[in-house]
Amino acid sequence: MTIKNRKVYGSLSSPATLKVLACLFEHDIDFEFVHVDLESGQDKQQPFLAMNPFGRVPVFDDGDIKRFESRAIIRSVAHEYGKKGEQLVYWEARKQAIVANWIDVEDHKFEPPALRLINNPSKGFTSDQSVVAEAELGKVLDVYETRLSKFKYLASDDYTVADLVHLPNLEALLGNSYTKQHLFESRPHLSAWCFDILARPAWTKVLEMQKKAQPSSA
Amino acid sequence: MTIKNRKVYGSLSSPATLKVLACLFEHDIDFEFVHVDLESGQDKQQPFLAMNPFGRVPVFDDGDIKRFESRAIIRSVAHEYGKKGEQLVYWEARKQAIVANWIDVEDHKFEPPALRLINNPSKGFTSDQSVVAEAELGKVLDVYETRLSKFKYLASDDYTVADLVHLPNLEALLGNSYTKQHLFESRPHLSAWCFDILARPAWTKVLEMQKKAQPSSA
Repeated sequence: MTIKNRKVYGSLSSPATLKVLACLFEHDIDFEFVHVDLESGQDKQQPFLAMNPFGRVPVFDDGDIKRFESRAIIRSVAHEYGKKGEQLVYWEARKQAIVANWIDVEDHKFEPPALRLINNPSKGFTSDQSVVAEAELGKVLDVYETRLSKFKYLASDDYTVADLVHLPNLEALLGNSYTKQHLFESRPHLSAWCFDILARPAWTKVLEMQKKAQPSSA
Repeated sequence: MTIKNRKVYGSLSSPATLKVLACLFEHDIDFEFVHVDLESGQDKQQPFLAMNPFGRVPVFDDGDIKRFESRAIIRSVAHEYGKKGEQLVYWEARKQAIVANWIDVEDHKFEPPALRLINNPSKGFTSDQSVVAEAELGKVLDVYETRLSKFKYLASDDYTVADLVHLPNLEALLGNSYTKQHLFESRPHLSAWCFDILARPAWTKVLEMQKKAQPSSA
């Protein structure tokens, strides 16, 4: 894929943007990354609002349509660019139903408490809000542990976009020694799954992009 | 479709259940409805938890797999049972991308403030929470009004599951004279869209099911 007019408008501090980047790298899709400055509110102003009237990154502009909502972008990219043998979705409706099921679990069950924990690490996670979020996320991860004791990945024994959408928040949770210890170490199947999916070359490329964009840490 | 071992486990007071029922009726799928009593917490106990470990209705059991997460059920049912000419999704990835986009808008932008308004009608919508929810929903509906001035339905000029997922909450908002007046009357394209989609025979069937299940109002 060498068409170069595809653009991702986003921020490397946005988990939703990182998910979409991982998906594009998985599918070897060439694109230009356009930084949207969230601190100065570029996402709430024109011309960004013309692409996504709800003012949220990322937007994937492939020259034809401008797509927003990260999971919608990921689903459609995986369907459009997936090739037999390296596909991250299924074309058979009944198999894809399970992938869709676990994307929505990530959306509704996993990400909300995960983000509350990641974004509120004050006082070593002892604030009331953090304690509640940790307990909530722990229950969700118990379900994951059971699921991953039966299948290698969430939807099946294949890596799919249902796993991919977890990457940025897993990276953040495992990058903090407190959440790593309290949420992952006692759950071996969950830990093995994290180790596996966080090592995907497509995810490494995302982390390298992030590193390059932070001159202060160079 | 006359296979009779398909079952929907849900509650007629759950918008998510009603969405799935509307989708099954749209596709002429025969099924048995199994009431899950939310007040007594049947959804948080076995045997329900064996079907959905997260304890939420509805579950669609088609004898083969047990699907949960209403939007995931709806997507996969529409892909599995949609026939050319009466399909509520697209098989072409780029077209379906837009449907997926607007399903996620309903999920993340429309439903949260809508439910906060519907579930908190105290003091004629004058509580702080209601005022905030009304303002938030109003902004979302402004985007819908613009969108629906360009297309007959949210994703395109075809009725799709992106419209369908809005039905239960639109029914509730239009069923209340305050929200009807304050959120819909000044938005003509939005109102016309509501009038159109709420008149779908599949939705009428859902409302009839609800009526039959309420002996007190008979």
